[in-house]
Amino acid sequence: MTMTYEAFKALGLAIDMTRGKPAPEQLDLSQALIDDAARVGHVSRDGIDCRNYGHLLGLPEARELGAQLLGLPASHVVAAGNSSLELMHDVLAFAMLHGMGQGEPWRRAGEVAFLCPVPGYDRHFAICEALGIRMIAVPMNDDGPDMERVEALVATDPAIKGIWCTPLYSNPTGTIYSPETVQRLARMPAAAADFRLFWDDAYRFHHLTDERCRSPDIVGACADAGHPDRAIVFASTSKVTIASGGVALLASSPRNIDWWQRCVSIRTIGPDKLNQLRHVHYLRDLPTLERLMEGHRAVLQPKFEALDATLRSLLGDVPGVSWTKPKGGYFVSLYTPDGYAKRTVELAAQAGIVLTPAGAAFPYRIDPRDRHLRLAPSCPNPAQIEQAALAIALSVRRALDEGARRVA
Amino acid sequence: MTMTYEAFKALGLAIDMTRGKPAPEQLDLSQALIDDAARVGHVSRDGIDCRNYGHLLGLPEARELGAQLLGLPASHVVAAGNSSLELMHDVLAFAMLHGMGQGEPWRRAGEVAFLCPVPGYDRHFAICEALGIRMIAVPMNDDGPDMERVEALVATDPAIKGIWCTPLYSNPTGTIYSPETVQRLARMPAAAADFRLFWDDAYRFHHLTDERCRSPDIVGACADAGHPDRAIVFASTSKVTIASGGVALLASSPRNIDWWQRCVSIRTIGPDKLNQLRHVHYLRDLPTLERLMEGHRAVLQPKFEALDATLRSLLGDVPGVSWTKPKGGYFVSLYTPDGYAKRTVELAAQAGIVLTPAGAAFPYRIDPRDRHLRLAPSCPNPAQIEQAALAIALSVRRALDEGARRVA
Repeated sequence: MTMTYEAFKALGLAIDMTRGKPAPEQLDLSQALIDDAARVGHVSRDGIDCRNYGHLLGLPEARELGAQLLGLPASHVVAAGNSSLELMHDVLAFAMLHGMGQGEPWRRAGEVAFLCPVPGYDRHFAICEALGIRMIAVPMNDDGPDMERVEALVATDPAIKGIWCTPLYSNPTGTIYSPETVQRLARMPAAAADFRLFWDDAYRFHHLTDERCRSPDIVGACADAGHPDRAIVFASTSKVTIASGGVALLASSPRNIDWWQRCVSIRTIGPDKLNQLRHVHYLRDLPTLERLMEGHRAVLQPKFEALDATLRSLLGDVPGVSWTKPKGGYFVSLYTPDGYAKRTVELAAQAGIVLTPAGAAFPYRIDPRDRHLRLAPSCPNPAQIEQAALAIALSVRRALDEGARRVA
Repeated sequence: MTMTYEAFKALGLAIDMTRGKPAPEQLDLSQALIDDAARVGHVSRDGIDCRNYGHLLGLPEARELGAQLLGLPASHVVAAGNSSLELMHDVLAFAMLHGMGQGEPWRRAGEVAFLCPVPGYDRHFAICEALGIRMIAVPMNDDGPDMERVEALVATDPAIKGIWCTPLYSNPTGTIYSPETVQRLARMPAAAADFRLFWDDAYRFHHLTDERCRSPDIVGACADAGHPDRAIVFASTSKVTIASGGVALLASSPRNIDWWQRCVSIRTIGPDKLNQLRHVHYLRDLPTLERLMEGHRAVLQPKFEALDATLRSLLGDVPGVSWTKPKGGYFVSLYTPDGYAKRTVELAAQAGIVLTPAGAAFPYRIDPRDRHLRLAPSCPNPAQIEQAALAIALSVRRALDEGARRVA
């Protein structure tokens, strides 16, 4: 260890590692989306004036592009606004207000519960909490949620209406669901007839290695298993093109798309089709998108490697400390021994490094073992990442030292 | 009358007069918004990278522009996505799910009711119907809603949580709320502590005469009356710039804006700030917008005049038939004698002229007197408007003839 915690603190640095924000260089990759707006114009392939109202489910060619990206027929895919989080929120809000499919409104059910694999995505949990949906944590294993627990709960409790899934490069653990996990999620009996998989395919194209893992076709797997309406897939180009101005996608069975259309027709006269048209011209097809994603990887991979290398050199010898080395996605999970996560975040903050609050990756923001930290290395530059990793390592060690002194 | 209904029908025309869609020439007025995207770029006045996440309430300079347009401080104004209808829907959905302000969620209230001045905007009523909010029709007078009725109902029934208001050039009657109506809405006692005016200022800038009527400052009026949180104002540039790609605005008291921020922070990481930045560069300020609106008027006014002139020459002598000549907005209301609206719409449809379904401007789509038709002359060209007006007049006359034969 070349520096003390106090010495680092004296540097007066300020680095934000809280959120999975793309770096400016990543946004620069899609400059053509802005620069070519005039050339793209406003008339779609089919002669649709994209400036006017209408096309509630999205511009047809945007739905077709989405379908190609997700490996589904276009009739299963909705192209929407700038945020898949909005789509997830609205599916849940519509289910509460109107009911899912033909079922009664969830607000009239005595209780509604969701399974939440942990650690998971804090914004998923925030939606449930705001809507009064009880969250039941289930452990995230190396191959996805603990399916013994999931199956036992879902089969017996009709209050459980859904489960949050991030099947590829999970936020924040980087977990890749195994084919067996996916099959079990598709096939398992559910006590609730309107049980749903909330399938957040946020990192479908966000590889950090040559392996390029593939998201499973959950809509097909559920249909094959006799549960055609079980999966609702969410994705967006926010971390592919422009974070604030991407195109979000929702995909599911035709029956669920009809349900979505009924709900959303009350809310809007249609999405921003001009932005969808620009995206169709810019992204074109899956190979073009995959080339773009290589550019993202070139920006991100060195940051993840710098984080890993610094943590390895500074924390590799500390018992009970470990971290993930994800093959994709936006996050690294760092585990301290039980009881040290909160204190580590405090100490890092005092040293100028802002981390996601400890517990954020758990329902109600409570990590029962107080040991998980979510690190988001996408936005700072590699030199900052090294400094942040140094500060985090110093903070972990200092927290452990404090603990050892308390025991002694 | 120069042509019979049967002869018109034989022409085989097809003209859509159902919705208040802008005409292509109106959308052309804002071509610069598309053409200048590259020049505008992605960096805001304050150095914000508009491509990235964040700024939940909108880009600061977009909020400032919205504030100038609405005559309010920027802290009272939210700049959002492409649709004010979405904002209205979401305010109501959030109130149902979470409660309005500090009140309990409306879904837990025994019953929720809204006052609906009629004829009114069908999409307002569709939101209420979908959310299970009981709609109570109140008559729309020449100076706004019948305030005797409104005051009596709101003062005594705590289930009444709000009223739909389109204060200027109302959809579909063209009504302009009088200053007295506005004052009474601001001042009236309400049995529900969380009673709200849903103030849809959709046609604030959409003048069809030199008079340029002004929308009242309802937020200020409510504050002066001791009801600072009563009014929630909705507006958008959808019929100013680009229908599918405008910027929607929500304005209210700072306390309501805080409430909105809490609710919406669960749903999104922020609006499309690039589109907001383009709008700030293009619209600039109120005088620039008002010049643009002169261009809209130049397109729309001849259509409204053609409609009025044709109706006058063909229906001017028919007892019990009247229509509005609005000073702004997008609609004309045509009244037949009681019992003839549905049949007129049917006959017009058979002659190739699609009108908004009779009853659409009433809660639950029921016009108790079956006499109101909503005409939307914005999108067809003036020649089509004349043909449509001819067909409508022939359909009214034919419906009345059928009625006379039934009586005889």
